[in-house]
This record gives sequence, C-alpha cells and structure tokens, in this order.
Amino acid sequence: MGRSRVTVTDVAHLAQVSRQTVSNALNRPEIVKPDTLARVRAAVAELGYRPMPAARLLRSGQSRTIAFALSTNPNGIADRFLHALTSAAQDRDHRVLLFAAGSDNEDIRQYEQLLTGSVVDAFVLADTHRDDRRTAWLASQGARFAAFGRPWGDGTETHAWVDVDGAAGTRAAVEHLAALGHTRIGFVGWPAGSGAGDDRGAGWAEAVAAIGSAPDGLSRQVLDSPGAGFTAAQELLAAGATALVCASDNLALGAWSHARTVGAAVVGFDDTPVAAAVGLSSIAQPLREAADAVVAAVLDGDADSPHRVLLRPALVERASSTPAGTDL
Amino acid sequence: MGRSRVTVTDVAHLAQVSRQTVSNALNRPEIVKPDTLARVRAAVAELGYRPMPAARLLRSGQSRTIAFALSTNPNGIADRFLHALTSAAQDRDHRVLLFAAGSDNEDIRQYEQLLTGSVVDAFVLADTHRDDRRTAWLASQGARFAAFGRPWGDGTETHAWVDVDGAAGTRAAVEHLAALGHTRIGFVGWPAGSGAGDDRGAGWAEAVAAIGSAPDGLSRQVLDSPGAGFTAAQELLAAGATALVCASDNLALGAWSHARTVGAAVVGFDDTPVAAAVGLSSIAQPLREAADAVVAAVLDGDADSPHRVLLRPALVERASSTPAGTDL
Repeated sequence: MGRSRVTVTDVAHLAQVSRQTVSNALNRPEIVKPDTLARVRAAVAELGYRPMPAARLLRSGQSRTIAFALSTNPNGIADRFLHALTSAAQDRDHRVLLFAAGSDNEDIRQYEQLLTGSVVDAFVLADTHRDDRRTAWLASQGARFAAFGRPWGDGTETHAWVDVDGAAGTRAAVEHLAALGHTRIGFVGWPAGSGAGDDRGAGWAEAVAAIGSAPDGLSRQVLDSPGAGFTAAQELLAAGATALVCASDNLALGAWSHARTVGAAVVGFDDTPVAAAVGLSSIAQPLREAADAVVAAVLDGDADSPHRVLLRPALVERASSTPAGTDL
Repeated sequence: MGRSRVTVTDVAHLAQVSRQTVSNALNRPEIVKPDTLARVRAAVAELGYRPMPAARLLRSGQSRTIAFALSTNPNGIADRFLHALTSAAQDRDHRVLLFAAGSDNEDIRQYEQLLTGSVVDAFVLADTHRDDRRTAWLASQGARFAAFGRPWGDGTETHAWVDVDGAAGTRAAVEHLAALGHTRIGFVGWPAGSGAGDDRGAGWAEAVAAIGSAPDGLSRQVLDSPGAGFTAAQELLAAGATALVCASDNLALGAWSHARTVGAAVVGFDDTPVAAAVGLSSIAQPLREAADAVVAAVLDGDADSPHRVLLRPALVERASSTPAGTDL
C-alpha cells in the first residue's frame, strides 16, 4: 500500500513538534510560539502539505459529533456500548453519527467521506482486531479518534484506547468457582487468534494454575454458538470438570443447558439479557464507565499522551453458580 | 404555551398552499408557478416569517443525515430497529445522527438545536405515544420527519408514519393456538392507555371472539416484567386457560416459566434473543422492511401525501407452542 498523501505526522516529524502543535499552528496560530510556528510553516511548505477542510474543522470541535460504525449484526454488548456512548457523548454535549460497519476497507471509505464531505469532531471504533487497518488509516490522517478495544498488535500503535480486562474477568470467574469448592474448572473458548478470546483464555489458564488445578484436557476452542457450547460442556464434564468458565454468554447458554442437568456450574461472559433470563452467572463489562473514558479520550486527550484505560469487569452471581458436589 | 415564532404552517395557511409549496417557494423558487410564488412571498412578508438557516438546509438534502433519538434503556426491539434504520439509511447514502432520548420536551430541545446549530436532512422518531408533543412540534417547524409508530391520537395528525399491525400479530397468535386445539386462550397485556398495548389486546379479543371462545376473566393487565407475567400465568391457568398470548416477550418469559411446568402454551411478542434462547414462540416485527419504509417516507414523501404504511408481523413457532391436552 503506497502513501497517498502527506500527513500531519510527516509535518510533525520534519518540524520536530507534536501533531497537536502542527494542528494548533494550522488552526489556532495565535497560541503557538513564533519560532515554532515558523518551523511548522516551513515544514508544511517543504512537504507540500495541504490540510483537508474537514480535517481542519475536526480540530475546531464545532460539529460536536462523534462518528461510530455500528456492527451490522445486532449484538448485546455492542448495542449496550452504543447506548452508553450516546449518553456519555450527550453529557459532553456531543452526538453520535452512525454508519453501518463493513470490512476495514469499507469503514475507511466511510471515514474518508466523513473527513472530506461532512463534519465530525472525532471517531470512536469498536471491534478492534489484529491487523486493524482502520486505526492506522485514521492515525495517518491526523484524525482525532479512540478505540473501545486494545490494538492487539505489536505494541507500536500510538493511539488512544479504552478496554475491559477480559483476563481479570475469567480469573475472577475461576476464583468464584474455586470458592464454591470446585477444583476441576474447565474453559470453553473461541478459536485461537482473536485478541479478546485469547485474553479470556489466558486469564482462566493463569487462575487454574494459581489454585493448583491441572487444566490439561479441560479446555475447548469452538465457534461462538449455544450448540457448540452444549457439545463442549458434554465433553469437558465427561473428562472430569465440575465447573466451566465460558468466553461468552452464547457459549455459556448451551453449556448450562447440559450442565444444569448434572449439577455442574457455569459462568458466562458479558452479562447479556439472555444470561439474566436463564439464571446464568456472568462477567459484566462496565460499559458506561468505558464509554465515558472513550469520550474523554477523544475530547480531552492529545496525540502526545493518548489515554489508555483498562477497566475491571465484575462477576454477577446467579443460579448457575452451583456449589461443588451438587447432584440433581 | 404561547406561539414563539411564525411557522411554515402559518405561511401555508395564509397563502392557501401546502407546506411543501411554501418550502419550494423559499428554496427552489424556479419550480413554483409565478402567481403562487407571489402569494407565498406576500404571506411571508405579511407574517414576518423568517426561515431558520438549518431549516433551509433541511430541504436541500446536503447533509445526508437523519436524526434519531435512542431510548436510554437498552431494549431489544428499539436496538434492532436502529440497526435496520442504519442499514436502510446507508442504502440511500445517508447516515444516522443519534442523541439520547429524554422526555418529549427534552427531545424537542434537541430537535431545536439540530435545526438551528447543526445540519440534518430529516428526523425519524420511535416510541410514539398518545399526546406526543414531538410530532406536533416538528410539523410546526416544517421539518421533514416520519415516525416508526402510529400517532395513536385523534386522527387529525397529518405526518408520515410506518407501523407494524400489533392486532394482526395477536390475532395470528390466537389462530395458531386454536389450530393446536386450544379453546380457552388467555391474554397477558399491559395497563390500558398505551397505544401499542391496547392494539395487541384488541387483536386477541377479536380473535377469541371469532373462534367462539369466551374470554371473560381470561385477561390480565400488568406491568411489563417476567415476574408479573409469571403471576398472571398462575392466575389465568388456574381460571381455566390452557394457552396464553402475551403483549411482550418479557411477560411471556415469566408466563412460560410457569406454563411449561403444567404443559400450557405461550406465545410472546417481539421475537427477542431471549425468546429464541428459551424456546418461546413469538410474533416477529419486520424491522428491516419498516426501516426501509421510514427512510423512503422521509426521503421520498411530501407533506401533501405523507406515506402511511402498516406492515404485518409474522409468528415464529418454537417449543412453547404446546398442543392442547399436553400434560407433563
């Protein structure tokens, strides 16, 4: 992929200032020291940098609008995050501009339209994943943005993000089940390679090791469906597990429909309405706190010290927290 | 409440033309007949009418943005409608601008800000209710809007709307249960006074009358919670019902947790993920079709012949469709 245009980052690098200083020099020159301003203007001239009109408006905060890509599949956690984001933005007198999410490349085309045609102050992304092209593109444009979700990359990303500590959640689930007397605690997770799924699996592995349990053979990696959760639960309980931690409520729903018939315990993840309806214990993400932090990251953060916030989830205990030794 | 400003409606009334013609005279005078144009301009001068800048932009369709108030409480049907609306708008190259819904008056303050400060092409409303002040306010401003939900008023409203025929849904539920052999079919609904709730109740009452069943004593009006559904189901089954139609999946979830223990049947309303998870039959609203129709109403409709679309829901059959005479 070739570099199609000179960016704020290029100007900042040449002028040896921050991207925020470049932005200030372009939009609010009165607040920039004269010698710095001269250096930035020389770099702009040397590189032939032309700010896009909308990119200039971006920094002025006039539109009071934050763009967000809505996942096309209704999904409990994403929808609840959107509610939280809308309220958090409104508390800061901003609104949320929605478009339907597609592939990374389709999302980038939408961003491009928003930057050139319409006016938004900032972008919020969710569903971050390995090799996420969206964050790199927004950074290259000097756009103000923050992600709900870690970069899951090689650590070189410099953007702002807010996430929930999934490993802390599955550790809390294991400790909760251990306190109920369980010593053989299995895990039903997703196929390796998803950042969030691997993180949740790592939390389970650490916690069962810490309580001296041997996790060999007590984990499964399956696609995210109740049916797959049901089958994995049959296998893991047959292999000696008496309690299961699941990477999602979707998996936990299937696991619990088998586990409840033999008195085994199940803890899910995301505290969905379905979990509440069927009595599933689950790990709840603090979505309003996350949304407040994301909005603060885009409105208050600057490129030189981007906000990075990792929040702790909380266990919600329900009927599926069966004590060890329970038989129906 | 005093009238604070002269509106398009006042100008239209004085000039004896439609509001659309007033709008055309203001924004696209080249398409208005000269004598009509003169009459509108005379009325504008006489009344001292001043169009708001954003209201002028509204008609120009430049922002390609539709504003929508998101209910602050996550709610299965509203969230799924928003997904459908975002996709339907995107298919017409528009985006959705979200703000957090409040009271009618708070929403109107938001509309006012959007009309004066920011730029949107149109408004879509949901959660319409009796004495809805929002639709009257938007009409008084000459704003382009459509409601997902009927006016539930006295029939004098002139705006565009799209709705799903709730009575047809509960009628279909009764006919489905009758086909399974049930003759004493009860109803668990909401307290009287909500448009959608009364409509669903009316569909049940008509359908049980049509099959010759005596509905006396077989309906309850309760608040929308699983606990209330459970209690209502106990009472109605004790009173002789063998099957229940519920105004929501929330009520049906509670009703089914009792009914399943005695072999009775339950049909819910809205086909939520919870209904799918616990095997509840339910009435599904065609949300994508509704969203397409709402977007067409705001983008293609005009004030003289506003779109009014009533769609039919469909029954989704699951395990809770127990045949009559089933005992556990």
